[in-house]
Amino acid sequence: MPPIVTLTSDFGTRDSYVAQVKGVLLSLGPPGLQIVDLGHEIAPQDVREGALFLRAAVPRFPAGSIHLAVVDPGVGSARRAIAAEAGGQCLIGPDNGLFGWLLGPGARVHRIDAPGGAQAHPSSTFHARDLFAPAAARLAHGEPLSALGAPVLDASTLVWPVPELTGDAVQGEVVHVDRFGNLISNIERAQLGTAVGRVVLADRTLHAIHDHYAQVVPGELLALFGSEGLLEIAARDASAAAVTGAGVGTPVCVELAAAARGIP
Amino acid sequence: MPPIVTLTSDFGTRDSYVAQVKGVLLSLGPPGLQIVDLGHEIAPQDVREGALFLRAAVPRFPAGSIHLAVVDPGVGSARRAIAAEAGGQCLIGPDNGLFGWLLGPGARVHRIDAPGGAQAHPSSTFHARDLFAPAAARLAHGEPLSALGAPVLDASTLVWPVPELTGDAVQGEVVHVDRFGNLISNIERAQLGTAVGRVVLADRTLHAIHDHYAQVVPGELLALFGSEGLLEIAARDASAAAVTGAGVGTPVCVELAAAARGIP
Amino acid sequence: MPPIVTLTSDFGTRDSYVAQVKGVLLSLGPPGLQIVDLGHEIAPQDVREGALFLRAAVPRFPAGSIHLAVVDPGVGSARRAIAAEAGGQCLIGPDNGLFGWLLGPGARVHRIDAPGGAQAHPSSTFHARDLFAPAAARLAHGEPLSALGAPVLDASTLVWPVPELTGDAVQGEVVHVDRFGNLISNIERAQLGTAVGRVVLADRTLHAIHDHYAQVVPGELLALFGSEGLLEIAARDASAAAVTGAGVGTPVCVELAAAARGIP
Repeated sequence: MPPIVTLTSDFGTRDSYVAQVKGVLLSLGPPGLQIVDLGHEIAPQDVREGALFLRAAVPRFPAGSIHLAVVDPGVGSARRAIAAEAGGQCLIGPDNGLFGWLLGPGARVHRIDAPGGAQAHPSSTFHARDLFAPAAARLAHGEPLSALGAPVLDASTLVWPVPELTGDAVQGEVVHVDRFGNLISNIERAQLGTAVGRVVLADRTLHAIHDHYAQVVPGELLALFGSEGLLEIAARDASAAAVTGAGVGTPVCVELAAAARGIP
Repeated sequence: MPPIVTLTSDFGTRDSYVAQVKGVLLSLGPPGLQIVDLGHEIAPQDVREGALFLRAAVPRFPAGSIHLAVVDPGVGSARRAIAAEAGGQCLIGPDNGLFGWLLGPGARVHRIDAPGGAQAHPSSTFHARDLFAPAAARLAHGEPLSALGAPVLDASTLVWPVPELTGDAVQGEVVHVDRFGNLISNIERAQLGTAVGRVVLADRTLHAIHDHYAQVVPGELLALFGSEGLLEIAARDASAAAVTGAGVGTPVCVELAAAARGIP
Repeated sequence: MPPIVTLTSDFGTRDSYVAQVKGVLLSLGPPGLQIVDLGHEIAPQDVREGALFLRAAVPRFPAGSIHLAVVDPGVGSARRAIAAEAGGQCLIGPDNGLFGWLLGPGARVHRIDAPGGAQAHPSSTFHARDLFAPAAARLAHGEPLSALGAPVLDASTLVWPVPELTGDAVQGEVVHVDRFGNLISNIERAQLGTAVGRVVLADRTLHAIHDHYAQVVPGELLALFGSEGLLEIAARDASAAAVTGAGVGTPVCVELAAAARGIP
């Protein structure tokens, strides 16, 4: 199988940044290297949004895929450049939390030291081109992580914001708003079991959790478990974000069913 | 030739949905599978816009290409998932009219039944990842359509909105506004012949059909036949949509030339 | 190495134009042809922005890559279609200045005459599909430039707007605003040497040139040399364009250091 290098960034595609990175990858990588765009529209410098994106996307790829990702407000500062192996995937980018939900206990992480040769003096503002892409090309050629630099034992990780469980309710929050205006919360299906009662988002109350959008009338709000197993609030054929005014951080509460709480 | 799988959707690329689909395709497909992005900026849930996009794009590809397309407001409901062969191309997606202008009389259509194995329980909101991508991977491995599910004899088709021909005029409408603000109508060159007189868009009148933009002065409106052979109203170095306020559904009328109507 | 064809345009990806071009490339090109999207969000019909994009991106690619680029307000008019070899890269597109900073003295340029066969009558508004893509496919098959048409000796070039050097200052201007709101000027590092004093952008004065964003506090403006070696004005974790109101054409002045001017 030809080596796969995926690209994720907040660069957009109106500027030439992504194009330059692709040129370097194809120039330095092995013949047949396959570049796969994951997305370049992460909100500028929003590391957390990038981390959520990668958390959902990376595990879907074949083992051994190389994922170059850049949301990097600290480029050029003392923040480290890292390459990692985690869950069978290779990750390359800044050590700023962007891979924070992928670097579990079994991850191996190495620094990326400045390469030799033509790229010996990387620019201080474009490590994606001058540091990460050359490192990705080396991994694509089969070099080991350890060839890139010294091991890192304290890479930045993120803690998943686990919702709070009180006696009769689970308190979570909106963690992402997608293109359709779906409000995706941090409440996992496994955390709720089957004893689910009302769902409360700010001042809106939903009385059931549905299976799919077409179970309500157009424009109506509904709660359902999305494709990552997270509870989301959607509006059929409409934007739940626009309908409710909610956004990232808005509280979401799931009340346990009265029966489950022993109320007759 | 390595198998080609194209992707078209209304997912945008800020969320990870497209990335997840690509991961599944590369994980389940044959080595060397080539993914080609057609476009992910179809207006959210606008099945008709997606159908127009596919009508223009799909026939340009080599025979045997696999086209996975998703604009799918009814995901998870009773709407069927289908795979089809039409005009030498393979189509995979929802049976909601998205392929409605490609499924001619010779098309072969099959249901996509839920696959076995790890994907036995597809999510109810993300069939692109859990149902369509695995099906595309199976076709890319060379499996026949019939392996995916039972034949479908009543797939959703669309009827092209043929303009009305009265004695001295052809009455059509704007069916698409492109990025440049060009107003693309449903009036085909073949329908008009050479006896063309004035073109009327709402309250604007154009007295000729031109060959290309540079034949008028900057900012001026012109009518011409676009790259699909459809009459369009454009404005040189400007947006005809902005200049005229017209949009999808605005009437367009082409008067036959006086000579053609026997007027001296 | 399989042939690489890159695509750059102002088409966006909501319309099917880019998709149609890809279909033609894959239909007419050799098996294994690799399509690489550089960017399709060049501002509509902004040839100069496209030229800046290509100036930065094209030289990064492996020698022999084929770059199809389209920002083409004059499509269908008398402007020529060209194919060129310059700096080891192949360029295909309109002769309107889009490649103006890549066509140095050693460049070889040929016209692209209308191809024979099925594409004998290219549309007058979509040369990317009907003229440039077939030409790119022919180069990808190994045909020489000279097979496409007659040599061109007067292709459109652009002159880089070299900043003016007065006795004690370098006068330049903003030439590009990127997605992050960074204001990129035409002042090159090599032109300034080390004797740099204040940087003046409109009515703002910066007293030093920094190395990277994290050297100032969030929201603060800074000047630094960007990844192309050009002086840029940025704002840490913010948009310098939004903070200052500056845009393309805003004057940027770098005063030489007092010491360098012999002032005690």
